[in-house]
Amino acid sequence: MTTAKRDTYTPETLLSVAVGVFNERGYDGTSMEHLSRAAGISKSSIYHHVSGKEELLRRAVSRALDGLFGILDEEHARVGRASDRLEHVVRRMVEVLITELPYVTLLLRVRGNTDTERWALERRRDFDHEVAELLKAAAADGDLRGDVEVRLATRLVFGMINSIVEWYRPDGRGMGEREVADAVVQVVFGGLRKAA
Amino acid sequence: MTTAKRDTYTPETLLSVAVGVFNERGYDGTSMEHLSRAAGISKSSIYHHVSGKEELLRRAVSRALDGLFGILDEEHARVGRASDRLEHVVRRMVEVLITELPYVTLLLRVRGNTDTERWALERRRDFDHEVAELLKAAAADGDLRGDVEVRLATRLVFGMINSIVEWYRPDGRGMGEREVADAVVQVVFGGLRKAA
Repeated sequence: MTTAKRDTYTPETLLSVAVGVFNERGYDGTSMEHLSRAAGISKSSIYHHVSGKEELLRRAVSRALDGLFGILDEEHARVGRASDRLEHVVRRMVEVLITELPYVTLLLRVRGNTDTERWALERRRDFDHEVAELLKAAAADGDLRGDVEVRLATRLVFGMINSIVEWYRPDGRGMGEREVADAVVQVVFGGLRKAA
Repeated sequence: MTTAKRDTYTPETLLSVAVGVFNERGYDGTSMEHLSRAAGISKSSIYHHVSGKEELLRRAVSRALDGLFGILDEEHARVGRASDRLEHVVRRMVEVLITELPYVTLLLRVRGNTDTERWALERRRDFDHEVAELLKAAAADGDLRGDVEVRLATRLVFGMINSIVEWYRPDGRGMGEREVADAVVQVVFGGLRKAA
């Protein structure tokens, strides 16, 4: 019944289907049976590709984390004044979030019930910490306003960026990742109020 | 066994316990049995106060919605230049979110599976719409920068504010609602970058 489909399956398409189901039902609420039905292949075919749903979770959040940590290796994130590097990182975070939307959505919803989830949470904290350090360096350079505490500012900026997964839909309003990234950078660094 | 406790129960304390359980387990995942155990009173005692868990949900989200809509009735939200009214509303949203933290958290997690949830979602949309209108008016006055589209700006501002429920803990870092509200207003209106 599913043999015709099975041939066309790759680990990549299986991962994409799994991420959709995880985001829809929650990771805890997803069984191999759900994955099998959504993918249209038997459970044993899934086990041919991966050891189980936790491996699919690990691959999915790895993809999101690789995208985010990749930003920190980019030249504009490594070279230059801290405030410019910070601006680059904020812009690229929005772009990665949108281009890898289902993967980053899953990463942001991870709860910590399994080893893989706890590992993902720890990696997220590492990433947040890197961005917080950049913000601190920009503040130390005197490029950021002095009346917003660094840790609080970091949380608010992450809050704004991460909230994009709640409303952004690729085929919705025709907004691309560039337009959203521009808006985030403008609000975060320049604020909404027109300069006097 | 529970008669001693029952006497001290009021609809208010029951509501507070229920909101905690809803936020912990999700509304869908909460049974009357869970509520009964958390409250330490029998199910029939709960039914003495309310018709069921949906009534508790309605009361809880009403409290959050009343807090938010109450802001729009405040003088500073009604009188004055749109950008000043907007600033007041943003500040007060943060304050209400923090003072009514569990209730607003529940409101933000409502999913739309029951009539009460759909009603709550509609009321939330009404509130968002009012704030978006204020932002539009401030832009029309020429007080906001012209390069961020109003709908997108509204989403980003709500994203930043609503994300506070994810990390704010009353007895955590000692930050009060005033400090967080100040920071949000400073970032949203003035941006992080020090004015040149």
